[in-house]
Amino acid sequence: MSAEFDFIEHKKNALKKLRKAKDEKLVDKDIISILDLINNLDDYYTSSSCYGRIVLLEIPEIGDKKNAVFLGKWHRKIKSDEILNAVKKSNKGLLWVLAQSPIIHIGTKTNNAADKMLKTAIGCGFKNSGLKSINKNIVLEVASTERLDSPVGKDGRLFFEGNYLDLLVDISNSIIDKSILKLNKFKKELKKF
Amino acid sequence: MSAEFDFIEHKKNALKKLRKAKDEKLVDKDIISILDLINNLDDYYTSSSCYGRIVLLEIPEIGDKKNAVFLGKWHRKIKSDEILNAVKKSNKGLLWVLAQSPIIHIGTKTNNAADKMLKTAIGCGFKNSGLKSINKNIVLEVASTERLDSPVGKDGRLFFEGNYLDLLVDISNSIIDKSILKLNKFKKELKKF
Repeated sequence: MSAEFDFIEHKKNALKKLRKAKDEKLVDKDIISILDLINNLDDYYTSSSCYGRIVLLEIPEIGDKKNAVFLGKWHRKIKSDEILNAVKKSNKGLLWVLAQSPIIHIGTKTNNAADKMLKTAIGCGFKNSGLKSINKNIVLEVASTERLDSPVGKDGRLFFEGNYLDLLVDISNSIIDKSILKLNKFKKELKKF
Repeated sequence: MSAEFDFIEHKKNALKKLRKAKDEKLVDKDIISILDLINNLDDYYTSSSCYGRIVLLEIPEIGDKKNAVFLGKWHRKIKSDEILNAVKKSNKGLLWVLAQSPIIHIGTKTNNAADKMLKTAIGCGFKNSGLKSINKNIVLEVASTERLDSPVGKDGRLFFEGNYLDLLVDISNSIIDKSILKLNKFKKELKKF
């Protein structure tokens, strides 16, 4: 089978999955307009995506990501109280606050199309973007460098509250703000494709 | 000029720069054997690299990376005291501890060669690897996902010392340990190229 046939099949399957995920409200709603813009282009489709988020994670042991539990997950700016409330669900392990900028995985039809989208993403500030595979099954990851990865507590208790927690939340919120600015820029560029 | 001619020119320049950097002791010495393995392959050369490091950074304002100052930089495991000593050089701004896994930038001759190296890197645990540009000037970034990015103080003072600082240092050191394991695996695979 040709690479073009494969691409069309992959795109069909990805759009089907996306429709299902949309129906089940599993897609970050603020990113849908960007996904739609990409999926309306002949040479591209989106496979998975995240609008950017703030997360409270519990990890049983350092590095044991497989058994990590999401105690809180917010695709928006938050208040310190929301972290404090989520900590109540904690049990055993190390608690981390993560602030993550957006990620969009894009399948592309040709290496040239991938290169064009990659340059656009990097130009919009998504400087951690890169192609995860090329030639047959071409996948581009659109990603940014801003992030926070802070251990904040252990076995159900925070190491600190008050000012320091507020600062972590402020920084996390500023990462969400930056993400939105970059996504808006990307959206503008996508309309020119 | 052909893409092959461009590649040969780029490789020649990169090797010249690397020799100069080696002479000036600017290359992390533990990564040199890996760079040499890559540069001895016809289809690849290395442009820049970092063995992985722990950093104490001072940032005047959130997001103002351009004016960030390195108060401490260690390409090895550290003790909490080393952070405490480096903090003494701090003046104004937010202090962050970062633990960063290795990064190697590799120029490659063809898209196929790039794809082969990318798959190898991902297979060795460098799951954040990706191609930063393809076709004419092909650049692969070998990178991993482990990292710590924690704000730890402000205007010359840490928010905390004692146990919590020790924990941050422990986690940072475990990132260095993991990096070494992955680099050794990568080295083994490179010998089979």
